[in-house]
Amino acid sequence: MGLFVYKFGGTSVGTVERIQAVAEKVKAAHESGDQIVVVVSAMSGETNRLTDLAKEMQKTPVAREMDVLLSTGEQVTMSLLCMALTNLGCSAQSYTGGQVRIVTDSSHTKARIKRIDDKKIHADLSAGKVVVVAGFQGMDEEGSITTLGRGGSDTTAVALAAALKADECHIYTDVDGVYTTDPRVEPNARRLESITFEEMLEMASLGSKILQIRSVEFAGKYNVALRVLSSFSEGRGTLITYEESAVEQALISGIAFNRDEAKLTITGVPDIPGAAFKILGPIADANIEIDMIIQNVADDATTDFTFTVHRNDLESAKAILTATSESLGAKSVTTDEKTVKVSIVGVGMRSHAGIASKMFEVFADENINIQMISTSEIKISVVIDEKYLELAVRALHAAFELDKDPAT
Amino acid sequence: MGLFVYKFGGTSVGTVERIQAVAEKVKAAHESGDQIVVVVSAMSGETNRLTDLAKEMQKTPVAREMDVLLSTGEQVTMSLLCMALTNLGCSAQSYTGGQVRIVTDSSHTKARIKRIDDKKIHADLSAGKVVVVAGFQGMDEEGSITTLGRGGSDTTAVALAAALKADECHIYTDVDGVYTTDPRVEPNARRLESITFEEMLEMASLGSKILQIRSVEFAGKYNVALRVLSSFSEGRGTLITYEESAVEQALISGIAFNRDEAKLTITGVPDIPGAAFKILGPIADANIEIDMIIQNVADDATTDFTFTVHRNDLESAKAILTATSESLGAKSVTTDEKTVKVSIVGVGMRSHAGIASKMFEVFADENINIQMISTSEIKISVVIDEKYLELAVRALHAAFELDKDPAT
Repeated sequence: MGLFVYKFGGTSVGTVERIQAVAEKVKAAHESGDQIVVVVSAMSGETNRLTDLAKEMQKTPVAREMDVLLSTGEQVTMSLLCMALTNLGCSAQSYTGGQVRIVTDSSHTKARIKRIDDKKIHADLSAGKVVVVAGFQGMDEEGSITTLGRGGSDTTAVALAAALKADECHIYTDVDGVYTTDPRVEPNARRLESITFEEMLEMASLGSKILQIRSVEFAGKYNVALRVLSSFSEGRGTLITYEESAVEQALISGIAFNRDEAKLTITGVPDIPGAAFKILGPIADANIEIDMIIQNVADDATTDFTFTVHRNDLESAKAILTATSESLGAKSVTTDEKTVKVSIVGVGMRSHAGIASKMFEVFADENINIQMISTSEIKISVVIDEKYLELAVRALHAAFELDKDPAT
Repeated sequence: MGLFVYKFGGTSVGTVERIQAVAEKVKAAHESGDQIVVVVSAMSGETNRLTDLAKEMQKTPVAREMDVLLSTGEQVTMSLLCMALTNLGCSAQSYTGGQVRIVTDSSHTKARIKRIDDKKIHADLSAGKVVVVAGFQGMDEEGSITTLGRGGSDTTAVALAAALKADECHIYTDVDGVYTTDPRVEPNARRLESITFEEMLEMASLGSKILQIRSVEFAGKYNVALRVLSSFSEGRGTLITYEESAVEQALISGIAFNRDEAKLTITGVPDIPGAAFKILGPIADANIEIDMIIQNVADDATTDFTFTVHRNDLESAKAILTATSESLGAKSVTTDEKTVKVSIVGVGMRSHAGIASKMFEVFADENINIQMISTSEIKISVVIDEKYLELAVRALHAAFELDKDPAT
C-alpha cells in the first residue's frame, strides 16, 4: 500500500478508448490498495485546436485569456476520466488547478507553482476515492487561471507528489522507459531499471525528449522518485532517483546524440581581452542558442574560435559572424552543417578514470575523426561528421557493454 | 451612460466571425460611454459535442463531472471574446461562474443561484473594462462547479443584472423582438415595442420560445428590465417590463399557438368524489404533462372528462386512459390528434370586458368550431381543429388590430 501520483499525457488520453484504458489501469492500482492521484493533460490535438481559435481572434492573444482558454483542455479530460472510473465502479473526483489550490505566480502562460493545498486531496483519498487533477494549470493569488507552460502537466504531477509525500510519481508516456540509447540507431539498446536525476538531465538536454527538463529538476529538488512507464503496455519502466539509491553501478548509463548541430569557426582573431564576448555577444543578442564553444590559441598574436548552433540558425549566425570577423580584422569564417554531437552520460565517471580515453580509443579504432570535445562532470560530448553517427553510437554501446544488465 | 448586461446565446457566438461581430457590437456600446457586462453561452454545437463524449464514458454521466465538462464550453467562448475585444482595442476581462462568485446550491446540472459577489465586476467596470462572464455556470459552497440547466445563460444574465442593478438586461437572439404572432403564419405580425412580464410568460409557455420561462420569472421577481434583440441586425427589440411602465395600451398583446396538442375524452364516468384524480393521476404518474382539462356533467349520475397532452404522448396516454376507463366502468375513450391551441394574451383583459365574446365572435364569423375553452386572468385559449389554425390566427390578428401600432 502506498500513495502514487500517475500522470498521463495527451497521447495517453487522446481518444475515448484510451481514456477508458487509463481508467482500467487506475482502477486496478486502486483495487490493489494503493491511493492514487491522477494528473491528466488535454486530449492530444485539443491544445492545437484551441490555439488556432485564439489566433483567429488576435495575432498575439492576451496571455491571461489564453490561459483561460487552454485550461479547458485538461478540464475536459479530467471529467471524462472521472466518468469512466465511476462507470467501472471506482469512485473518483476531479479538481481543476484552481479548485485544488495549486497557487502560482501571475506569469500567465509560464507560471511557477508557489504552493499546493493538499487538504481536499487527502480527505478524498482517505474516503477511498481516486482524485483526478488537471495538469498544466493553477490559479494566482487573485483567482485568475494560469498555465505552467511546456511540460506543465509533468510539473503538476511532480509538485503534487512532493506536496502529498507520494511514494512515487509515475509519468506514463508512449515509451516504456529510458533506454541506453535510441533503439532505432542501436537495436541492442536496453531499458534502464534506474537512472539518476543528473544523468536524466544530461540525457534530456541532449535530445532524449522523454521528460521535460523542468519536471526532472523539480523532482530532484524535492526528492520525488520519478518513474517513466508506458501507457500502452505493462512493465516497470525506469526509475529516476538519487545516485545513492541507484541499483546499477555501470560506468556510463547511456549514449545521447543530437543531429541538429552546425559548426562555425572564426580563425585569426587578434588575441585581446574581450574577443570572446565580441564574437559570441552578437550571436546571443540575435536569440541564437550556442551549444559547444572551443577556443584554441593559434599562435602568439591570434586565436581561433569554434562553436555550434542549431542547424536552423546557421545562416543567420554565419551572417553575424562574418560581420564580426570584418570589424575584428579576423582571418576567415568557415561553417559545417554536416556535424552531429554524440555524448556518453554516467555518474560512474566521477569515480572512474580513463572513461574519456576509452571513448577516444573507440573513435580511433573506427577511424572517426573527432572535431570538438567538451566535458562535464558526468558527460563527455564530441562533435563528429554526421556520416559516422550510427557507427559511433553502436561502437560506444558495445565498448561500454550497455547491452548487458549490470545487475546480473 | 448606463450599466447594461448583454447576453449572447450559442448561435450568436457560433463561429469565429460571429464572436468578432459580437465584439464589434460590444465595443460600440462601450465607446458610447456605457458600462457593459457580457454573458456568453457555449459556441453552438459545443455542448452536444461534449455531451456525446460524456455518454461514451458513462450511460448516465455523474452529474458533478458533467458540470465540470459542460462548463468548459462557456469558458472557451468568454476567453475568445476577450481576445477579440482586446484586438479591437477594447480592454476586457473574463470570469468563470466560480471566479465571479456566482454561488449556487449543489444541485448539479440544475443548480439555483444563491448569491453573486459583484465586487470584482464593479472594480473592472470602474477601471474602464468590459467584463465577460460565462453563462450557465456557478460554484457551490464547497467550490464544485455547477450548471444551471436549460436556459441557464439567460438566468445568469438576469441574475447579474439584478445584482449589479443594471439599467437593462439585453438578451440577443436570432429574432429581432417579440411579435404579435408568428410572422410565418401572419405576415402582418408586428414587433412589439414592449410587453409585460406576465404576458411574456403566457406567450412563452404557449410556444413562443424566445426566452426561457425561468429567466423571465426571475427578471419579473427582481424587477430587471429585459430587452430581446437580434444579434444579427440593428433595432430596439422588445422591452419586457412591468405593466405600469408599458407604453402600449392594447387590449391584447399577441396571439400564441401550439400545434402539438392532442385531445383525449373519457365519457360516462360515474360522478363520484375522486374521479378526476383516478383519471389524471395515472397519466401524471407516467410523467405525461397535461395541458388543458375540462369536465362536463353529462347527466345526473355520470360525467365527461376532456384533456390535452403533447402529441408525442398521445399513444401512452390513451393506453393508460383505456385501462382507467375499464376499472371505473366508464362508457368510452376517444382521442383526436388533429387539434391545435390558439390563445390571445394581454393584460388589457383585466380591465376590459367583452374580449372573450369578441374572440368567440371571430370564430363564429369564420365558421370555426371551438372544442375546448380555457381562461386565465390575461389569456384565453381555445382548442380547434388544426386545419383552422392559420385562418384563426389571421382573423384574430385583424379583429384585434394587432397590425396597428397602438402608440400612434
